[in-house]
Amino acid sequence: MKTIAIVGLGLIGGSMAVDLRRRGYAGEIIGVENERLNAEAALKIGLADRIAGQAEAFSKADVIILAIPVGAAAKILPEALDAAAGSGKLVIDVCSVKEAMCQAAKGHPGRANYVATHPMAGTEYSGPWAAMPGLFDGRACIFCDSEESSAEALKEAETLYGVLNMRISYMQSKAHDTHVAYVSHISHITSFALALTVLDKEKDEKHIFDLASGGFSSTVRLAKSNADMWVPILSLNRDNVLHVTDTYIEKMKQFRDAVAAGDEARIRELIEEANKIKRIIR
Amino acid sequence: MKTIAIVGLGLIGGSMAVDLRRRGYAGEIIGVENERLNAEAALKIGLADRIAGQAEAFSKADVIILAIPVGAAAKILPEALDAAAGSGKLVIDVCSVKEAMCQAAKGHPGRANYVATHPMAGTEYSGPWAAMPGLFDGRACIFCDSEESSAEALKEAETLYGVLNMRISYMQSKAHDTHVAYVSHISHITSFALALTVLDKEKDEKHIFDLASGGFSSTVRLAKSNADMWVPILSLNRDNVLHVTDTYIEKMKQFRDAVAAGDEARIRELIEEANKIKRIIR
Repeated sequence: MKTIAIVGLGLIGGSMAVDLRRRGYAGEIIGVENERLNAEAALKIGLADRIAGQAEAFSKADVIILAIPVGAAAKILPEALDAAAGSGKLVIDVCSVKEAMCQAAKGHPGRANYVATHPMAGTEYSGPWAAMPGLFDGRACIFCDSEESSAEALKEAETLYGVLNMRISYMQSKAHDTHVAYVSHISHITSFALALTVLDKEKDEKHIFDLASGGFSSTVRLAKSNADMWVPILSLNRDNVLHVTDTYIEKMKQFRDAVAAGDEARIRELIEEANKIKRIIR
Repeated sequence: MKTIAIVGLGLIGGSMAVDLRRRGYAGEIIGVENERLNAEAALKIGLADRIAGQAEAFSKADVIILAIPVGAAAKILPEALDAAAGSGKLVIDVCSVKEAMCQAAKGHPGRANYVATHPMAGTEYSGPWAAMPGLFDGRACIFCDSEESSAEALKEAETLYGVLNMRISYMQSKAHDTHVAYVSHISHITSFALALTVLDKEKDEKHIFDLASGGFSSTVRLAKSNADMWVPILSLNRDNVLHVTDTYIEKMKQFRDAVAAGDEARIRELIEEANKIKRIIR
């Protein structure tokens, strides 16, 4: 059994703690958590055995998991690698932007101890109270730039995500960041924009949400997502996010113009093209 | 028990048939269905007792339900009212755009027999095979311009939707159409546009959907919605749809510009404003 240090006991870090412990992979779990309320809640819920300072946690741990927003994670990654260099320790992060993370590790003497990972799972909730068992089961986990990691580090990371029942695939960090802009980051922006649109209208029309149906709820669900997590993602994946957002706005304008022109044939063409998503999403 | 004629045995018409029958409101259910495959499937599934021509169905029925796309429904509404005028028959439609429907009934001798209703329930699927029990339970149903309906017609419509366990509220058709543009129609357009954006990218990046997560699926779900239903909705609710689409594109541009400028404070401000949707959506 491994001693695990988890920096950030929120939705992802906390859910990893739950399953790594109950499935017998984790021995002691040491939490590093700067938010007092989160730290107390994580202890109360039992996500960590104790809360420690970063230096002590890094020194005691066999496995260091960085589960904080991507900007902050890139900042402390070199410190984790300082502790890991020349040891058998594994360092992983779980961030949704991978090029910035790999950049932060580049050339570090501890680089080989680090595996850049992105477990593709989550909900629109955050904090230790959002942690849940089984969050990762059957979902995809992407390892990036794995040629920079040692065979030992990769093997340990594969074991860990195997315990979490994730399907691992391998990708370059640059390609990863482009892909997630399309299949995750843009969905969040469109939900945020939808929420803003309807909240604006609500200022004049108090009861507008009385009519909101299931379709609206599922489309706007991601708009509940946490700013601490999403500001650095959108900022650090800027070029990809801009590109997909511009394409998306272009598609919205095509709908807009077809509706404005009363061009039913064109509206139909756009909808039927969009329907091809059925091929992919069950 | 009532004899019911249902024009259109798809998701909505079919689901009404299921619950109106098993809850003892409907005696004979006569389907009017022009698509041969839908008609055969509806009989096989047991949604209707028989399929008949429109004239016969309208003449035999106590209650006539128009459950076809809004353009087509507006066209046959006067024919249903011809059959109903001066009788005790109730005519309802279930369309998502109500001003065009009320306009089609205006001044007709059978206007008092008609109640313009919008049961706010559905899924992204269509056809008789999409019909399901319990679809309407606990959801909202809007009655529009009810001052134009007779007390008897209103009472019967309330009974029918009571059997379906719907919460009825009353609204002017004009206000209804504005509201649904915000809490339903725009969600469909944003999902269609998201699907188009990612499908475009897929032409170059075959495996892009391997990374698609739960968040993407829920945001894009409505893009599976049927063109036969949605073309006339977007077309007939043109002014409201244009207005909300323009507001929405403006919000998307605000995100785009904040990301382009690397303005993290502004991105945070937009996300935190959008987070207020939590107040409304559980």
